[in-house]
This record gives sequence, C-alpha cells and structure tokens, in this order.
Amino acid sequence: MIGGVSVSESVELASCADPYPSRVGQSSAILTRLDPVVHSQSFEGGPIPRHLVDEYEERGFLVLENMFTPLEVRSLQEEVALLQENHRHADNETCIAEPGGHTLRSIFAVHKSASSFARLACDRRLVELAQFLLGDEVYIHQSRLNFKPGFRGKEFYWHSDFETWHVEDGMPRMRALSMSITLTENMANNGPLMLIPGSHKHYVACSGQTPENHFQESLRKQEYGVPSDELLLGLANEGGVFSADAQPGSVIVFDCNTMHGSNSNITPYPRSNAFIVYNSLQNQVVVPYCERPPRPEFICTRSAIEPITIREGGISSG
Amino acid sequence: MIGGVSVSESVELASCADPYPSRVGQSSAILTRLDPVVHSQSFEGGPIPRHLVDEYEERGFLVLENMFTPLEVRSLQEEVALLQENHRHADNETCIAEPGGHTLRSIFAVHKSASSFARLACDRRLVELAQFLLGDEVYIHQSRLNFKPGFRGKEFYWHSDFETWHVEDGMPRMRALSMSITLTENMANNGPLMLIPGSHKHYVACSGQTPENHFQESLRKQEYGVPSDELLLGLANEGGVFSADAQPGSVIVFDCNTMHGSNSNITPYPRSNAFIVYNSLQNQVVVPYCERPPRPEFICTRSAIEPITIREGGISSG
Repeated sequence: MIGGVSVSESVELASCADPYPSRVGQSSAILTRLDPVVHSQSFEGGPIPRHLVDEYEERGFLVLENMFTPLEVRSLQEEVALLQENHRHADNETCIAEPGGHTLRSIFAVHKSASSFARLACDRRLVELAQFLLGDEVYIHQSRLNFKPGFRGKEFYWHSDFETWHVEDGMPRMRALSMSITLTENMANNGPLMLIPGSHKHYVACSGQTPENHFQESLRKQEYGVPSDELLLGLANEGGVFSADAQPGSVIVFDCNTMHGSNSNITPYPRSNAFIVYNSLQNQVVVPYCERPPRPEFICTRSAIEPITIREGGISSG
Repeated sequence: MIGGVSVSESVELASCADPYPSRVGQSSAILTRLDPVVHSQSFEGGPIPRHLVDEYEERGFLVLENMFTPLEVRSLQEEVALLQENHRHADNETCIAEPGGHTLRSIFAVHKSASSFARLACDRRLVELAQFLLGDEVYIHQSRLNFKPGFRGKEFYWHSDFETWHVEDGMPRMRALSMSITLTENMANNGPLMLIPGSHKHYVACSGQTPENHFQESLRKQEYGVPSDELLLGLANEGGVFSADAQPGSVIVFDCNTMHGSNSNITPYPRSNAFIVYNSLQNQVVVPYCERPPRPEFICTRSAIEPITIREGGISSG
C-alpha cells in the first residue's frame, strides 16, 4: 500500500498527489508509466527516420554511430584532458571521486565550465533530436563527464535516472532524456553503458527513504533509489541486457526512465563519456518529492531556466 | 636491482636462488620466462590438434567449447546449488565471501568435498590435456568454485596465478595450468574471464612485500602481487585484452603465468565457473619464496601428493 492506494502494474496513480511515488517506505514495486515516450505528435520532417523513432519508443534507447567527427572528438578529448589536469587535486564540489578513492569519477556542469562542452550541448544534432523526442523546447537539466578510469573504474549500479530526478530533484513527469556522447572507445570489456530494453515502460518504485544530503554519497555509490533484485531480474528476463559498445563520437540516447548501469573497468582503457540531460521546458523541476532540500544547482538546474538556442559551427570552432 | 642483479628483459636469472623473484622490495618489473609453455616434446597422438597447441603456446590460453554435455553441466550445477545452500551461513574456511559482504565468492577444494567435482577433476578430457601440455603426470594443486554472483559480483583484479603460487606457495617453476569450466553462460557483460594474449611469456615481478596471512584478504581482494599500471598497459597494448565468452560446458585452459582478471557483474546473471589447477608432478611446491608460513592445504596441496588416475564414466555417473 502506498498512501492508501494498492500498488500494482494495473493501478493508475494519476490521481495521487505524487504520480510516481518512490522511497516512501513501501517495498520495491512496479507502477504504470503515465507519460508517452515520444512526445511529438507528428513524425514529418523529424531529425531521425521513423523506424528509429519506433525503436526508441519500444526499447527506450538508441545508439547513433558517427554523430561527431574524429576532429570534433579530439577537440572534446583535449578539453577533457585539461579538465582532468585542473581538477586533479581540486576540492571543487562539481568533482566526484570514485568510491573509496580519489580518482576522478565525474565532473558535473561541464556545459557551464568548458567551452567545447558548452558548444556540444547546443549542437543542432543533439538539440533537434531532444526537441523532437520530447515534443517541446528543451533546457539542460544536468551535464557531466563520466570517466570510468582504466584499471580501477568502478561500476554504476542499475537505476532509472527519472526515479532520482523525481524524488530528489522534483522533476514532475517523464519528459526528459539523456545523451551519452562517447569520448573513448566503449568496448564490451571496459564497462560500457548497459541498458534493459523495454524497462522504460515501467516505473520501479524503490524501498527505503532518502537520507539527508544523499547526493554526497549517491554520486559515488548509490544505495537508495535502487530497484530490488527480483524486479531487476524480471525486467532483464523480459527485455535482456544490452551493452552499448560504440566508437568515439557516437551518441547513446536514452529515455529518462530506462533502467541502466555499468560494470567496473579493470582494463587499462578508460571509458569516458559526456552526458547531457535535456528536459522539456514544460517539465521544469518543482519542490523535491522526498521532502529534502533541493540538490545543488550543479546537479539540477533550477534557476534562470531558458530554452536552448541551437548554436551552429560544430564543436571544434571557438 | 634485485639481490645485486640488475633486472631487465634480457637478464637471465636462472643462476639466482630464486628464479622468479617478486615482492622482494623492488618495483614492478618484467623478467624473462625461463620455462617452456608446452612441455611435451612430441605432438604425435596429442589430445588436441597441432594448431591448437600452437595457439596455446603463442597466446597462453585456449577456449574449448562443448567439452561437457548439457547433462553433465546440469549435474555440476545441481551440486553447486547444494554446496551454496550448505555453505550459506557456513564459517567453513574453504568458503570465501565477496569483499565488503557475505555473499559467497569462492569455495575451495571442491574436488575433495563434492563428488561431481571429484569426477570432473579426474575426467579424461581434462587430465589428458593437462598431462600433454605439462609433459608429465599431474596432480591437483588447487580447485575451487568461483561464483561471481549476479547484481553484486565483484571483480578479480589482474594477476598471474604463478606469481602468487611461486611467492606464497613455493611452486618452483612454470609447469602448471588452470582449467576454468563454465557452469553458467559467460557473457561479455557478466564479468567473463579476461586474458592478455602473450602475457604468459613475461614474468611480471611485483612491488611490495607479502603481509602475514595475506591469503585471508587476497582471496577476497588482492592488493599484493599486483602488477603496475604501466606494465599492464604495455602487455595489453602488445597483446590486447581477450574476453572469454563461452556457453556452459566449455573449458578455458590457461597457462599458470597468463595475466588474467575479470570485471564486476551487475547483471542478474551469475557467472559461475569451476576452476582446477593441474601441476606437474616434477614441480611440487617447496617452501614459500616469501618466507611466510605456507598457505593452508585447501588453497595449495602440499601433503600426500599423488598423480591423478583418470576416471572413466563422465561427470553425471555416481
């Protein structure tokens, strides 16, 4: 029971105050998704062919190879090297270390701190696709670099981003998506992004409650907002587990509610990706549903929200 | 310098008291392998075709598919389930838990405690191949089940088994090999065994010294006997990183000095393998080279060593 409403796949929760309750003391459960996956009504003149739209709707993600040229990738890689060097010993709050270590795991808000990534986030190839799939003008909810360093890169455990963004950031509905831009080779053995096809159609409510300042730990290692083994097994048995192996310059587009994660990386080869989250302008965050104070601005854009203006000229040009 | 002898790829250390020094206070270094990989002199009537012998010699491992029938695999799986159940809350010394948890990671000496695995270890298909590659009668140096459970299976970091067996167990020379028998599907994404082709041709001496009772920690998470990042990168750049994806019932045969490891497993699908180490009867262990007391008998057979007698009749028959 959640707030007097019995929870099952067949129950519509639209009438509750919180359409997607999670971490409210219940056990892990699957709820109905109330939102479309593709929000545009018309497919005329869309940025990708219809069969890819259908694939995205059905599977909850797409892998688009060769979206950026080797020259553009090199330009991004160079900026990554600079950022890594600058942040090596930084106690900057946007820098997250690996669990149990000091190796850099993520840098947040790179679209604000690094010019190449600012251009990337406003690139027509990404923004038009986001606008089309979300059927609206978009803004950047979050951006980050994920490093998954060689030798000692740790896993990201299974999660739906939306579950966290809803509970901890107050994102009302499923009208956001992520784009993971591959900056190194993402191979089967260096901890590539894994996604469960079809999982985006279910909302997995998680057990437990959100501790105060949860983000300080969860960005290193998530312990709340984690689906139960039983539900994960059910989703994987239904949809399989897809490993997004891709060359540098590819883009993995995935729905905000697609269950995903990645294994550790003991190979010598880092798996670095840029990660940009686009949210519909009509889906701006409100007060967090977990009744905790909002997470910092570098994790969740909350102030001065403006729709993205497409910027021409590619990534490399200053 | 090691004991007054400068260490480099070109230096022969056969005249030293310890032909394969490691963890003697030096930094990580690559030494010459002094032993053959294939010890048989004649290839006539061998158990595998000549091109596979050459592949093993060159790469340091072989993946042999369909070595055991589905019925035999099921018989082994059933015994694994029983062992897991029996050992769920056991404080038996042969049971090793995952780092930071209580989930079962390994059970040692299964050829002594479980009848199917006793039969497996004496099976003609494995023993004849071991005898051929090692050019001698063989005995079981070690056996274990590795579970790599679903959801939370942790990595095994890169290592050469021989380095540990030499330093901590007193295995004199490289005349042993491992057979990993796949009991579940070993997929690219559930933490399969990864091997560095060609790495067996080099002996990677490791830095540090062996702490007392090191095995109590190292079987959960190895921190000594670990090659440097630089040398691992060199080996991987030279030989690549091979992921041994295989169906249940396959056998991955690898030289005792082949660098190997595996990533974590967050998929719901466990990656369970049986692991049997055959050693040449002429290569029985002596006093450990690290000057620590020998590790327990369940990790390293030291007493009442007798050559294996092949047992006919398959795995399933009692």
